[in-house]
Amino acid sequence: MVTQEDRHEPIDVAMVPEVVVQRLPLYVRVLGQFASAGIEVISSEQLGAQLQMTPAQIRKDLSYFGRFGKQGRGYDVGNLAARLRSILGLDERWNAVLIGMGRLGRAVASYPGFEPEGFRIVAAFDADERLVGHQVGSLRVQQLSELPETVSTRDIKIGIVTVPAAYAQDVINELVRSGVKAILNYAPIAPSVPPDVRVQGVDPVMALQSMTFYLKD
Amino acid sequence: MVTQEDRHEPIDVAMVPEVVVQRLPLYVRVLGQFASAGIEVISSEQLGAQLQMTPAQIRKDLSYFGRFGKQGRGYDVGNLAARLRSILGLDERWNAVLIGMGRLGRAVASYPGFEPEGFRIVAAFDADERLVGHQVGSLRVQQLSELPETVSTRDIKIGIVTVPAAYAQDVINELVRSGVKAILNYAPIAPSVPPDVRVQGVDPVMALQSMTFYLKD
Repeated sequence: MVTQEDRHEPIDVAMVPEVVVQRLPLYVRVLGQFASAGIEVISSEQLGAQLQMTPAQIRKDLSYFGRFGKQGRGYDVGNLAARLRSILGLDERWNAVLIGMGRLGRAVASYPGFEPEGFRIVAAFDADERLVGHQVGSLRVQQLSELPETVSTRDIKIGIVTVPAAYAQDVINELVRSGVKAILNYAPIAPSVPPDVRVQGVDPVMALQSMTFYLKD
Repeated sequence: MVTQEDRHEPIDVAMVPEVVVQRLPLYVRVLGQFASAGIEVISSEQLGAQLQMTPAQIRKDLSYFGRFGKQGRGYDVGNLAARLRSILGLDERWNAVLIGMGRLGRAVASYPGFEPEGFRIVAAFDADERLVGHQVGSLRVQQLSELPETVSTRDIKIGIVTVPAAYAQDVINELVRSGVKAILNYAPIAPSVPPDVRVQGVDPVMALQSMTFYLKD
């Protein structure tokens, strides 16, 4: 995949700004759209137009990960996408645990978008004894006391939290104690975690709230 | 609400970095958590610890919106929260339209988190003739040709897109043509919109993909 024009040093994770890392999945997606349209080479101008960024920002973002493409010729779409996928670990399979099996948890459990992208929910938990033992799709709801053992024996790196706000911090603490390093949080709280644990919120209300700033007359 | 220590000039929207605006809802949420815990005054250190930011970043973010609190005394939690809510337009009511009434759209329509925060889905659309006319909760599914008139007569500023990826850009174009200025996009694409239109994606896969970078061995 690596052509003569590309030079890649090992990446120093700590040197890459988090905001750049958070943009990379969007790059991957946009590059996939270009590839589907049969476009093989793109300029930073074209990428920038699609991502609402300046060409200079695009070049700066990508510079953290090596040299891509040839001066003045643009980026090889397939090559850049493959390299970014590898950098993000998207070619690997990731096991996840889901905590909170109410309506939201069950919707998340049946979401068809995770599996094709390499994310697999392999265990489900709930604090409510009445839900424990129930089958949700291919998952049997377990009790929370079994969390640490399940995380370690099933090689689980990701926790998905779909409990009500009032319980979310406690559940996240449990996940952290069990060794989970990445948490997808659907609960409407801003949780505290140690510095080596990542949290991403999936929160439609917060997304709306960041846009109304621009809607006011 | 404005105390003697606070000075607020009119805010120049174009001067505020978008990343700062996107953090404000999180500030509001964290301040709400402090208030619920009975905490009336907080330092930028305490806010920063909760938001995983440095105190200097906190002070810089807030400096775009005026002077808050008194040097060395910290921020008045209630006062700061009220001011940020007003800046974000969170005290207003916002009408939204939902497009795509498949499984995801119906789940979004019944999501209980929007209404208490001032967001109200007042109309629903689908391109599938078989769904048009059906009742989903309090909404009657309309055909897409009625979108422009509904947007203008019902004072709709926000569009929520829950159609499959292949149709999302077309639907977003329709929303833009109808005058919608803020779009909450659940479809896994990076859509193109004019510069005066905001888009926020709600995409759990993309959130996961931005964390696996840190999980790789």
